[in-house]
Amino acid sequence: MNNLPERLILVCNDDGYQAPGLAALIESVKPYGKVVAVVPEKGESGKSHAITITLPLRLNLLRDDDYVTMYSCSGTPVDSIKLALNQVLKRKPDLVVSGINHGSNSSISVIYSGTMGAVIEACLNGIPAVGFSLLDFSLNADFTASKFVVKRMVENVLQHSLPPMVCLNVNIPRVSVNELKGLRLARQTKGVWKEEFDKRTDPHNRTYYWMTGDFKNFEPFAEDTDEWALAQGYASVVPVYVDLTAYHVMNQLSNWNYEL
Amino acid sequence: MNNLPERLILVCNDDGYQAPGLAALIESVKPYGKVVAVVPEKGESGKSHAITITLPLRLNLLRDDDYVTMYSCSGTPVDSIKLALNQVLKRKPDLVVSGINHGSNSSISVIYSGTMGAVIEACLNGIPAVGFSLLDFSLNADFTASKFVVKRMVENVLQHSLPPMVCLNVNIPRVSVNELKGLRLARQTKGVWKEEFDKRTDPHNRTYYWMTGDFKNFEPFAEDTDEWALAQGYASVVPVYVDLTAYHVMNQLSNWNYEL
Repeated sequence: MNNLPERLILVCNDDGYQAPGLAALIESVKPYGKVVAVVPEKGESGKSHAITITLPLRLNLLRDDDYVTMYSCSGTPVDSIKLALNQVLKRKPDLVVSGINHGSNSSISVIYSGTMGAVIEACLNGIPAVGFSLLDFSLNADFTASKFVVKRMVENVLQHSLPPMVCLNVNIPRVSVNELKGLRLARQTKGVWKEEFDKRTDPHNRTYYWMTGDFKNFEPFAEDTDEWALAQGYASVVPVYVDLTAYHVMNQLSNWNYEL
Repeated sequence: MNNLPERLILVCNDDGYQAPGLAALIESVKPYGKVVAVVPEKGESGKSHAITITLPLRLNLLRDDDYVTMYSCSGTPVDSIKLALNQVLKRKPDLVVSGINHGSNSSISVIYSGTMGAVIEACLNGIPAVGFSLLDFSLNADFTASKFVVKRMVENVLQHSLPPMVCLNVNIPRVSVNELKGLRLARQTKGVWKEEFDKRTDPHNRTYYWMTGDFKNFEPFAEDTDEWALAQGYASVVPVYVDLTAYHVMNQLSNWNYEL
């Protein structure tokens, strides 16, 4: 007789409860435990680690059956995790997964990502957490290869757990299962989004701007980066640290003037 | 005859263009160059590194005289920096400062902070950038001591510049100038916000939640942390690295299974 409590897995994302990537993620983690999803009620891409301070938050129970318990949240991905941990779940989950995002969160995009905002928030609360993103924005994206990646990483995390204050940013190339070369541990590529705003005039003769942009990779030939792994057909696995201190410059900065 | 171009300083914040902390910051940096401010049109606290993807953005020129050129932006602090760099300024600024925030951004709050979102965005674009926050939420907060801190740090950065991909998170205790002990280089305190949602019922009998919370310091006696420095009456100076890779666990994670 097995008296161990069933494993509890919390699922989040930033594309909202109707995203096909969410369904693919729930399907992938379902064999590993009881699944509760608390996800934004609408698209929250680019919301990073934003929280909602000046508005009240709502939860809406969408589904509660043997397959999944699912709530939508009126706030951001981070709000969703906070409400899940504090109001929805009766105990701390054993694992938090977020995604599968429709679009890349590699390199510096980790910092803008709502998918990873949810993951980082879970990590801050001491829960093993992994974000998954597929390099395909399409609503019709094929998540077949992604599901293999999710299963491999969930098994890794359940077997090894994760170091304190470290979570994972996993990106998956847009390839078929046969083309996927495997997974590859990598570091965050140094790069930046170069913005080119699309400047327009509205019907009332006022100027407005749409944000667009191109990713500029500062080190396209560095084989230990996530961008390189993805370009070669690997899923990239970047461990993310939630202590932002630049320890490597402490000595250099200790020579500055700190007197008033 | 001096043909050097005048130093150009970009100012941002997350409390909006009417915040007294913004006026204090502009006054503090004005002696060091031409000042252009591009700031959110309303409070954007807790917006982290969020960007606006699904809505167009607006800029509104509020003031343009010898003292300051100021625009409000309809988006987040990060949107404001992007628009400033791409649409407002004719050249890359020599320095970006953000704040002075009404309220602390020490320890893990750096990750939720809109003030620091602006700073990190500038840093990603290769510009020396510093965020300033005063541990006082009040609209009537006294920024006298803060102004000394801003001047000291601006002079440090102009003299030494900053290492690549490193920006600064400066917090100032709520003390008088006489009580302020000086500045202190520190690391980000390990801690977490423990949320206790205030659950209420609206007039239509529906549940809603207000986010509240208490900061829990995991290492209150660590003398090299920003929380410790602030508690002792120092302004804390934390160098922030925008590469989130957890390099210290790479070896440990290299033993996982990365096959499909």
